[in-house]
Amino acid sequence: MTELSDDGFLGGRLRIAQPRRGFRSGADAVMLAAACPATGGQSVLELGCGAGVASLCLGWRVPGLRLAGLERQADYAELARRNAAANGMDMRVLVGDLVRPPAELRALTVDHVIANPPYFLDGTPPPDNGRSLARREDTPLALWIDAGLRRLQPGGVLTLIQRADRLDGMLTALSGRAGSVAVLPIAARAGREAGRVILRAQKGARGPLRLLAPFVMHSAPAHAGDQEDLTDAASAVLRDGAPLARLFAKGS
Amino acid sequence: MTELSDDGFLGGRLRIAQPRRGFRSGADAVMLAAACPATGGQSVLELGCGAGVASLCLGWRVPGLRLAGLERQADYAELARRNAAANGMDMRVLVGDLVRPPAELRALTVDHVIANPPYFLDGTPPPDNGRSLARREDTPLALWIDAGLRRLQPGGVLTLIQRADRLDGMLTALSGRAGSVAVLPIAARAGREAGRVILRAQKGARGPLRLLAPFVMHSAPAHAGDQEDLTDAASAVLRDGAPLARLFAKGS
Repeated sequence: MTELSDDGFLGGRLRIAQPRRGFRSGADAVMLAAACPATGGQSVLELGCGAGVASLCLGWRVPGLRLAGLERQADYAELARRNAAANGMDMRVLVGDLVRPPAELRALTVDHVIANPPYFLDGTPPPDNGRSLARREDTPLALWIDAGLRRLQPGGVLTLIQRADRLDGMLTALSGRAGSVAVLPIAARAGREAGRVILRAQKGARGPLRLLAPFVMHSAPAHAGDQEDLTDAASAVLRDGAPLARLFAKGS
Repeated sequence: MTELSDDGFLGGRLRIAQPRRGFRSGADAVMLAAACPATGGQSVLELGCGAGVASLCLGWRVPGLRLAGLERQADYAELARRNAAANGMDMRVLVGDLVRPPAELRALTVDHVIANPPYFLDGTPPPDNGRSLARREDTPLALWIDAGLRRLQPGGVLTLIQRADRLDGMLTALSGRAGSVAVLPIAARAGREAGRVILRAQKGARGPLRLLAPFVMHSAPAHAGDQEDLTDAASAVLRDGAPLARLFAKGS
């Protein structure tokens, strides 16, 4: 693994070591954590946890969770363990593959599954193999959803963040197995089409799908700087660790 | 059929006779017409055309279309023919069922299919049988989509308006048969979840799905009156017959 950087998340409340040039977690992992409705005492499994950013953001916001992660790359799994310890949290990290899950994973049943599956179906090989594996789609999205649903107890909640253009594949994979689906479009700016979606679904539920109002990340019309132009809502999530629960509440 | 009313659409540019107490077309039919990207000389088939409102709004906006409709209820089909003639348009209206389509329908291949399938899966029997049949789901939504795709030529476009909570069923039914899907959420007010979606898909295409920014119908925070508080964009569509094409254009 390449040289590590020490990055602050949630306005510096969380310190995360991750490779400088490999796959690096960012805003999407924080948004995923903000959307998970876990409450204290519940169990959460993150599929493809990388260096643990999403799970640890969630653990920071909700004390008393039992956190577990599955990660295919042993060096990232080790980083996730170190990051958990460095931030005063416990996280059980298993090394293994979704398609051939280790026995320890198959024995898990949890209240929540979260995942930020890879965004790219293919691509030119990037210099770092870690980044390559984490961003390239070796495992079809439907298998991520299948693996997540298998680990949930009945009524458990699957929370995913993914490219908006894969909404159809996600909904098809959930069809008949999970319901009460809520889709939160995430748009870079007001009036733009969604770049990402957060999708929440309840195993075995039968409630109707809800297509929520978009969450808008940036407020200025043009890209001014790094995070200079975050909307108040995005800033609350990314810098202060605020939850997205209100957006998913009925009648909002 | 019950007594008829004479209703103005598109700011009175279109006069439509429809039953006072049966199924009555409204804003959804006008929105459907506005979303169809047909251009002069092309052919359009409307499945479940009722009294013809959507097709005739489209025909008013785009001169030179060849309009056809399928309608299960003979009295509505006759109304659609009369409404077309009264507005100086030609519309070929076939009487028949989606599940057992008449031979004339099976012989059609068109550039565009539009439909506003029934919104309710079930319900207490309303007083008028026409309304009952048009609003109740006797034919699963997947069969509407299947019937529409069969009538399209390769590359032809299917445009639907439907309840937002049935987005999953629509995307599943399209899976593998149509692509370049664009989903336009329609929200009653800014910040609300979508009540309807307009979905456009191209037969045999492989382009990625796009989840567009919502189209907002009303601007005031509370319901003030009938159409008193339409947004400028909604007013342009409903009163002036403006197209929704710009919203579907890439990069908007």
